[in-house]
Amino acid sequence: MPNTFGKLFTVTTWGESHGPAVGVVIDGCPPNLPLTVEDIQAELDRRRPGQSDIVTPRKEEDKVEFLSGVFEGRTTGTSLSMMVRNADHRSSAYSEMRDKFRPSHADFTYQSKFGIRDHQGGGRSSARETIGRVAAGAIAKKLLTLATPEHPLIVRAFVTQIHDLAMPAEALAAFPTLAEVEASAVRCPHPETAQKMIERIKSVRSDGDSVGGVIECRVRGVPAGLGEPVFDRLEADLAKAMLSLPATKGFEIGSGFAGSRMRGSEHNDLFEMRDGAVHTRTNRSGGVQGGISNGEEIVFRVAFKPTATILQPQPTVDIHGQETELIGRGRHDPCVVPRAVPIVEAMTSLVLVDHWMRQHAQCGLFKNLSR
Amino acid sequence: MPNTFGKLFTVTTWGESHGPAVGVVIDGCPPNLPLTVEDIQAELDRRRPGQSDIVTPRKEEDKVEFLSGVFEGRTTGTSLSMMVRNADHRSSAYSEMRDKFRPSHADFTYQSKFGIRDHQGGGRSSARETIGRVAAGAIAKKLLTLATPEHPLIVRAFVTQIHDLAMPAEALAAFPTLAEVEASAVRCPHPETAQKMIERIKSVRSDGDSVGGVIECRVRGVPAGLGEPVFDRLEADLAKAMLSLPATKGFEIGSGFAGSRMRGSEHNDLFEMRDGAVHTRTNRSGGVQGGISNGEEIVFRVAFKPTATILQPQPTVDIHGQETELIGRGRHDPCVVPRAVPIVEAMTSLVLVDHWMRQHAQCGLFKNLSR
Amino acid sequence: MPNTFGKLFTVTTWGESHGPAVGVVIDGCPPNLPLTVEDIQAELDRRRPGQSDIVTPRKEEDKVEFLSGVFEGRTTGTSLSMMVRNADHRSSAYSEMRDKFRPSHADFTYQSKFGIRDHQGGGRSSARETIGRVAAGAIAKKLLTLATPEHPLIVRAFVTQIHDLAMPAEALAAFPTLAEVEASAVRCPHPETAQKMIERIKSVRSDGDSVGGVIECRVRGVPAGLGEPVFDRLEADLAKAMLSLPATKGFEIGSGFAGSRMRGSEHNDLFEMRDGAVHTRTNRSGGVQGGISNGEEIVFRVAFKPTATILQPQPTVDIHGQETELIGRGRHDPCVVPRAVPIVEAMTSLVLVDHWMRQHAQCGLFKNLSR
Amino acid sequence: MPNTFGKLFTVTTWGESHGPAVGVVIDGCPPNLPLTVEDIQAELDRRRPGQSDIVTPRKEEDKVEFLSGVFEGRTTGTSLSMMVRNADHRSSAYSEMRDKFRPSHADFTYQSKFGIRDHQGGGRSSARETIGRVAAGAIAKKLLTLATPEHPLIVRAFVTQIHDLAMPAEALAAFPTLAEVEASAVRCPHPETAQKMIERIKSVRSDGDSVGGVIECRVRGVPAGLGEPVFDRLEADLAKAMLSLPATKGFEIGSGFAGSRMRGSEHNDLFEMRDGAVHTRTNRSGGVQGGISNGEEIVFRVAFKPTATILQPQPTVDIHGQETELIGRGRHDPCVVPRAVPIVEAMTSLVLVDHWMRQHAQCGLFKNLSR
Repeated sequence: MPNTFGKLFTVTTWGESHGPAVGVVIDGCPPNLPLTVEDIQAELDRRRPGQSDIVTPRKEEDKVEFLSGVFEGRTTGTSLSMMVRNADHRSSAYSEMRDKFRPSHADFTYQSKFGIRDHQGGGRSSARETIGRVAAGAIAKKLLTLATPEHPLIVRAFVTQIHDLAMPAEALAAFPTLAEVEASAVRCPHPETAQKMIERIKSVRSDGDSVGGVIECRVRGVPAGLGEPVFDRLEADLAKAMLSLPATKGFEIGSGFAGSRMRGSEHNDLFEMRDGAVHTRTNRSGGVQGGISNGEEIVFRVAFKPTATILQPQPTVDIHGQETELIGRGRHDPCVVPRAVPIVEAMTSLVLVDHWMRQHAQCGLFKNLSR
Repeated sequence: MPNTFGKLFTVTTWGESHGPAVGVVIDGCPPNLPLTVEDIQAELDRRRPGQSDIVTPRKEEDKVEFLSGVFEGRTTGTSLSMMVRNADHRSSAYSEMRDKFRPSHADFTYQSKFGIRDHQGGGRSSARETIGRVAAGAIAKKLLTLATPEHPLIVRAFVTQIHDLAMPAEALAAFPTLAEVEASAVRCPHPETAQKMIERIKSVRSDGDSVGGVIECRVRGVPAGLGEPVFDRLEADLAKAMLSLPATKGFEIGSGFAGSRMRGSEHNDLFEMRDGAVHTRTNRSGGVQGGISNGEEIVFRVAFKPTATILQPQPTVDIHGQETELIGRGRHDPCVVPRAVPIVEAMTSLVLVDHWMRQHAQCGLFKNLSR
Repeated sequence: MPNTFGKLFTVTTWGESHGPAVGVVIDGCPPNLPLTVEDIQAELDRRRPGQSDIVTPRKEEDKVEFLSGVFEGRTTGTSLSMMVRNADHRSSAYSEMRDKFRPSHADFTYQSKFGIRDHQGGGRSSARETIGRVAAGAIAKKLLTLATPEHPLIVRAFVTQIHDLAMPAEALAAFPTLAEVEASAVRCPHPETAQKMIERIKSVRSDGDSVGGVIECRVRGVPAGLGEPVFDRLEADLAKAMLSLPATKGFEIGSGFAGSRMRGSEHNDLFEMRDGAVHTRTNRSGGVQGGISNGEEIVFRVAFKPTATILQPQPTVDIHGQETELIGRGRHDPCVVPRAVPIVEAMTSLVLVDHWMRQHAQCGLFKNLSR
Repeated sequence: MPNTFGKLFTVTTWGESHGPAVGVVIDGCPPNLPLTVEDIQAELDRRRPGQSDIVTPRKEEDKVEFLSGVFEGRTTGTSLSMMVRNADHRSSAYSEMRDKFRPSHADFTYQSKFGIRDHQGGGRSSARETIGRVAAGAIAKKLLTLATPEHPLIVRAFVTQIHDLAMPAEALAAFPTLAEVEASAVRCPHPETAQKMIERIKSVRSDGDSVGGVIECRVRGVPAGLGEPVFDRLEADLAKAMLSLPATKGFEIGSGFAGSRMRGSEHNDLFEMRDGAVHTRTNRSGGVQGGISNGEEIVFRVAFKPTATILQPQPTVDIHGQETELIGRGRHDPCVVPRAVPIVEAMTSLVLVDHWMRQHAQCGLFKNLSR
């Protein structure tokens, strides 16, 4: 089931960039969750194109519609279907893509795999597919918040690097607020860096070029015990979730690649008692040990490559095996990283809800057996 | 099914470090594959402790036994069960671990999740669990080789970095041979770097400390078309496979984190015709585009943290919430990275066989429908 | 994933009886299958209410719409989404059901399980949910037909019994044609019995009562080798498919319950050579031995209970635990069995395509390894 | 994963009749369950051959060994592996089966599917495979009992029919005790019928022939709410579980096939209040409505065909396509039905634990969200 994610809170997405609609079916959603279209729309609006002058000008309202699974304002526990109609069809703009493989896009590989592809706007490989993920993630996020009323679980992603411009390390000490993240179009909570990033993106756009970047995601309030070794470790499922996003090239948790250059005596997170509970003094583990959350903040980073679409002529090959040239035209998103922030949060929320349900199923139901 | 990996070629591992045995069941293995105990033993011997003077001196023969699924030297297609008895029980050495949580180990999180744990040698969280993965991976590797008789698919992992010692970039140009990898105890194919790495590991060991490192894995001969968007992208499943290994903190494919600092015009892999086939001039994609293999070499890297067990006193907390101190004693593996090389190859082989079977199921069976 | 069926050709249905729409997402559909809306509509029209004077007069056009996965008349191999809008909302007719549990309906159990339910027309438990199954089954059926061009695989279900009226045993000797099945509104291929069944249904309807019946399903042209022991035996998956349908109470294959009253010497299907191939002289096995198809005709039967909705007053209990009475009103389907015929065919086709793909994945891809 | 059953409490069996061993891995077992080898052995002894003079004289001790997942007398929540060595190898007795297909056995279909088979004693298709199911079922049964301390959930299977000898209908009114079931070698709780059944089996055995029969299974104490529509209905998963057993040909729940001959006004189970709870006056539903348990007794029946092995000459075909004759020799079990009783109970227990965990995961964890 390549288009399904999760084991208990399962999310199946469907839809092509220029087909009639995109959507998602959630199977296993807990019943009785209060839910409105606005809960979903708020997150969709964060990923929508056309929000600022540094992202793609594609104008889509992306209005979500509930098709099933919600009754009188609450989830029913049955399969929950949502759909967003595709409004902005300009398929004529894509006629060149029917035959030519765009470099570093999925045109060639979809053709190789399936022997057929919807070439319009990338078809199924378009990032427009992530609308379904964000819609489902909004429900997961609401579940996580409602389930932790006293110390709410918070999933916060933000941009730490665009091209070679990175937030200063000391600025990463604090857990950024949503307002700080949303303060800039680039979703970097460090204002000076954010300003430079925006300028860089504008400059690159004027060159018809693109840039990549890095998103960090932190989660507060995760209870110890989530994660399912040996294969469905929490970090393994987070890694899969992130590498399943378009344009991602890397994932690291806690100390990450830098940790590989440390000694054990530097890297180990020593335990101590704090506020009556077991905590670690440092968090090089990134909130996960042995594949299971340890109650500390979960911290991971995701690397995004520069957008493959650029407005410059590029040599390529066509479907008939002839070398040719492709010239990007029209709309162009010089940096997808800021818009990926809500998508990273959505996927993280989906992983956490799913693991929480799995943990509860195995260790919650029969936990008093032995008394 | 947290102890199962794969969708069609599924691998279920079981066993604790100091229980009676460790093992694996493969469900979905293709029938009629010629298979001997020696095929498995050769890979197990590569991960076995005690192979050289830089790894743990734990002496285990790790002799594998077929329990089902092989008949008269061939696989039957039924569930294939393999077992390795645990020989070297020294559980008295672990009595201190019954109560004290070892820093950066899984003791605390297993206790938090399950409310019980086998503390001996880490129990289920021990890297000894990977024996089952390597045994299954040996079969996957043999399948991949036999399936590509003319241009054999080769999965080759090797150590590129230990602590802060890294292979020079130019040494990465060539695809290393197995002999080059196995030439040094540290499994780095660049002799001078390998020598320095060995010295560093010995030096760290004499300090009772440990170090981490990086493994690169490359795969030649993968046909275009493997990978199952949108969620089961090839790189997503590779990332999950790698992050499911003990001690891993990061994964990157192709350009990885460095790619996030590039422009699109630098990063895009331009298509060209070569030897009558579509190829890319560069390989920043790492052999995967849009989640599907493109026929180029697959290249990814995995970051390993330094071993958590060190022979130095460390403050910690016990199971009763009391602060205490733990002093590592006895056997000690100052760097697990070299022994992880065959494990990375095993997991990679498992991902590839599984995706190949999935690709064939969807696109192979009914492919001539439309004629 | 309770709303998903299948392992490789997976079908996820969604929708409530009186919600905005019902639909289905297929994940894993083979690419390049020629497919039109008419292919789907033809099967949907067979299950549609209002086709004759013996079924429910609910007037719904049930027009299907492709939302994704079909491009220029062919499947693309990406997730295939289909939707049917619910046209005939009369939710006011259901206000009594909000509080009262209809006997032998799912009202009480949905309320017990989820703590909430969409009471209108049965909500998710309505047989309207099977629209998604029939739509998906139409694609499976087309795949099976195109995959067997010389001796087409044919899935044929028909009614053998309504209330206590059963086809004569000798009339079951021949494999009925589609025309014979569709010749009567009751879908029994034996005209005299069909006539009696229709009269019985009309008589029962005039009493405000209902009746059950039995459907037999036969499949010709299934190759030997489909079925996945030990748990996913072909008959086990068929049994699950049939018992997952509303109103079903039993399943038997081949000799079935009658076979339990036979001796082995009577029951065994002896092998012989016929037309150069291995065949059995009799078919008490029903086309399946050891969980795997043997190339003979697959034959099974499904028992349907009488419709729970009757137009007679019935004692019951309300949501507040008060005893009360319920009087069925309005539309009423005195016998659902004839309309279940295309649904049984759909589920059978889904099982067969899925098992064929699974068989091919395991035994097809690497089958020449040993040469 | 054809050799795996269950979604959360998953059971993977392995092993051939005459291989080194048979076994099972449970993934997802709740932690902290007190568990001893004796808990398992007691159920294995019930299915063991050689218990009485009416079953196969194969002498196997079938001693189970824990290989992982149990620590100091409790389950740890990690994968739980159990093995039973095969003691009674007499593979020379099976040389004839290497080439000849036994009628109504799985020899021909395994050969057709896999192109290879272990012919000794039926290899993987042997009922010896069910040892793993019974071992896992013993754990599921213990979980169910401990989870319902006040009104223990009881799974009780028993033989109601052998050949054409059936228990009188009125004898089915009471829920039989374990002692009543185990009182006779044939496991029919009605002594007079049991005596006749034993005589019939002896008589049939002396003819070198075999007979089938029917097992009824009843479950008391199941809470309302278990079952996962639309596909994983409780009765659908029970049907699959039963049809996955060797030699089964049919399944019916509640009124079953007889229900198809009733009117709705007779068949509907009217609700009433009893002891302060909602109950039905009758139980034609068999404890399940709309795919979900309603709190009444679960009642279903399973049809078993006569044993395929008979000690009479039978025409057949060999692996080379030559017609030949096969003469059964040696050990011979004239009726497997009594020994299937603990297997039916095991599979039922596995289905119930799995569904209970699923129910809890979806509807238990977040159930107070809306307050």
